[in-house]
Amino acid sequence: MIHPEYQKIDRRYERLIRRPNVPAPYGNGVLTRWRHPVLTARHIPPFWTYDVRLESNPYLMERLGVNAVFNAGALKLGGRYILCARVEGGDRKSFFAIAESRRPTEGFRFWDRPVILPDTEPGETNVYDMRLTRHQDGWIYGVFCSESKDRNDPDLSAAVAAAGIVRTKDLKTWERLPNLITARSPQQRNVVLFPRFVNGRYAFLTRPMDSFLETGSGGGIGFGACENITRAVIDEELIVSARRYHTVTEGKNGAGAVPIRTPRGWIHIAHGVRNTAAGLRYVLYAFATDLNEPWRVVAEPGGYLLAPSGGERAGDVGNVLFTNGAVDDADGNVYIYYASSDTRLHVASTTIDRLTDYVFSTPPDALRSADCVKQRALLIGQNLAVLGKGGVLHD
Amino acid sequence: MIHPEYQKIDRRYERLIRRPNVPAPYGNGVLTRWRHPVLTARHIPPFWTYDVRLESNPYLMERLGVNAVFNAGALKLGGRYILCARVEGGDRKSFFAIAESRRPTEGFRFWDRPVILPDTEPGETNVYDMRLTRHQDGWIYGVFCSESKDRNDPDLSAAVAAAGIVRTKDLKTWERLPNLITARSPQQRNVVLFPRFVNGRYAFLTRPMDSFLETGSGGGIGFGACENITRAVIDEELIVSARRYHTVTEGKNGAGAVPIRTPRGWIHIAHGVRNTAAGLRYVLYAFATDLNEPWRVVAEPGGYLLAPSGGERAGDVGNVLFTNGAVDDADGNVYIYYASSDTRLHVASTTIDRLTDYVFSTPPDALRSADCVKQRALLIGQNLAVLGKGGVLHD
Repeated sequence: MIHPEYQKIDRRYERLIRRPNVPAPYGNGVLTRWRHPVLTARHIPPFWTYDVRLESNPYLMERLGVNAVFNAGALKLGGRYILCARVEGGDRKSFFAIAESRRPTEGFRFWDRPVILPDTEPGETNVYDMRLTRHQDGWIYGVFCSESKDRNDPDLSAAVAAAGIVRTKDLKTWERLPNLITARSPQQRNVVLFPRFVNGRYAFLTRPMDSFLETGSGGGIGFGACENITRAVIDEELIVSARRYHTVTEGKNGAGAVPIRTPRGWIHIAHGVRNTAAGLRYVLYAFATDLNEPWRVVAEPGGYLLAPSGGERAGDVGNVLFTNGAVDDADGNVYIYYASSDTRLHVASTTIDRLTDYVFSTPPDALRSADCVKQRALLIGQNLAVLGKGGVLHD
Repeated sequence: MIHPEYQKIDRRYERLIRRPNVPAPYGNGVLTRWRHPVLTARHIPPFWTYDVRLESNPYLMERLGVNAVFNAGALKLGGRYILCARVEGGDRKSFFAIAESRRPTEGFRFWDRPVILPDTEPGETNVYDMRLTRHQDGWIYGVFCSESKDRNDPDLSAAVAAAGIVRTKDLKTWERLPNLITARSPQQRNVVLFPRFVNGRYAFLTRPMDSFLETGSGGGIGFGACENITRAVIDEELIVSARRYHTVTEGKNGAGAVPIRTPRGWIHIAHGVRNTAAGLRYVLYAFATDLNEPWRVVAEPGGYLLAPSGGERAGDVGNVLFTNGAVDDADGNVYIYYASSDTRLHVASTTIDRLTDYVFSTPPDALRSADCVKQRALLIGQNLAVLGKGGVLHD
């Protein structure tokens, strides 16, 4: 029989799922954060963690805890907002699970069962960070990180990462394709599939020479393409968004959400990393590339789009914002699903018009303090003229 | 025309600037923290980040965000409390800006324009952490960190740091002097100029052999002097406050506020760093040196003066307290402006008498657990005798 206390746990869960969300105060005009996360470990259905039977679980204890719910791919399907979340068990292994809602900012409920991917890679230890791409070929693709123990490295923690590829029509039945091969890069993380063919080929954002990144020798976000998605091989990768000294991409960077197609170009929301005395810090940044030559940057605003703030700063891996999914809605709204500190998933809303204006009207990074302060002095001077203060100090 | 929504943003800013501050509870008698930070990113005038014009910014979005306001030099000038803050843009580059108030603990408002330093160092990428010294030669000096890409290191993140020097009479017109040269130390951070000549020379606190510090080979806060401030060269550096195993300076240390002159010696408020599993932890500590031989320590209290607490712990670089400015007021009050987690600036107040008593009456670090507990047992025994409890435990 069902444990009599289970109803209490279920009611608490239902209250959480039904909790309304509200915009957070103090926006900057570019994005609106929403107060509550859209998915957390507490959004996991309790029947995924408890054994509900009185006989076998008399103390009604969790038998398989969930540690965190974060980095989700996103799309809209049949009028529903769909998130394909990274769910991390207490055992550190992640898996994927679909949550859906009729509203983009609240009410996300996991389907009854997590995604069971075909298990075709025997060495694969962990999977995470799926980007969902609705491709013009008619399939929905999931591109994710497939991680295995590095058998060539005596370090017990050493891992190798590849881009796994699955496809589906309904998010229920998944076909697994061979992992992406990038001929010139031994490893890949943060690979993203464009929703459209580029010169008749499947086009990706990649991260060339990923294994060399740790030595800090260069790299960045790359562009590559392949003929055949069922045996995807990318020969050449072009650097699209490079790492650069003393910018938001200094430490490393990687593609995030599936590129958003706008009349003025593809808009990319990526992450940039810098090192600090307290570990790495991840922020989100944006740039645009040409519609027909998506490896060619056409707008590159300086600074970050979104950085950890308030309670977002703390979590399993502090000081991290990360996105791998956004929904570009038919009414012009854009919802960016971003995770904080590898722990929970939030949403920030904007519009295509605002995002486009942000990407194309924000000044580029001037790269040196002296030039950055000149750039700001120009803005201040213009504003003081308009505001009629004429540079006079307050008294 | 001015964007009609701009007034709302301006009113929000004015409310913040006018917010009164109050002492925080739970002091320790040495210092009083004040509840609200005195400067944050939200204290930046909105006309520094927004383009206020409806025509060119129809969505009223920030065009040049500010990420953080922290590490400020401080002095009192013409009855006003002056802070020369490190302002960090969203692009990671810092610049300096003057904020002033009639009150030491609240009401700080930035001047209409940031400081524009003469751009005399073409390789300089970033500047930060200015100490303001009102020198007996009649100038106000600013000594700050001037950071450049290390061209000799293939690591894209590698930087070299030097001490930049500027001087001014009014904090508006700045003359830049050549960077300090320390003949025996390839790099310098946290350099502080004494307000008085020492044996007729300009005297500094430095950090000898800074580049070797990462290997943990020694070092500490040094003392050096030069003849000519317009071509400042320090030949020899003497260690004043050494790094020491299992103390607050184990990882590294550095000078902070401009030394405070008291009848019993120069009082120094510095920072000490230790390493942890979650990165470096920075605390403030204090010591005193001889008035005439300021390289000679005359009092060295054990432990820290101030450590991260509550909300101070979280920020861009968590678990960091840092100071590079204090005001030693004519009425005997002392205001220590300290930043938390590289994100915001706070104030803690004390008096010259308290600070002197702290530095000269706090027992030194006994360096070993067994000796530290004896030190404490002595204090406890004295107290119990006075309190009349006779060593009986509570029941």
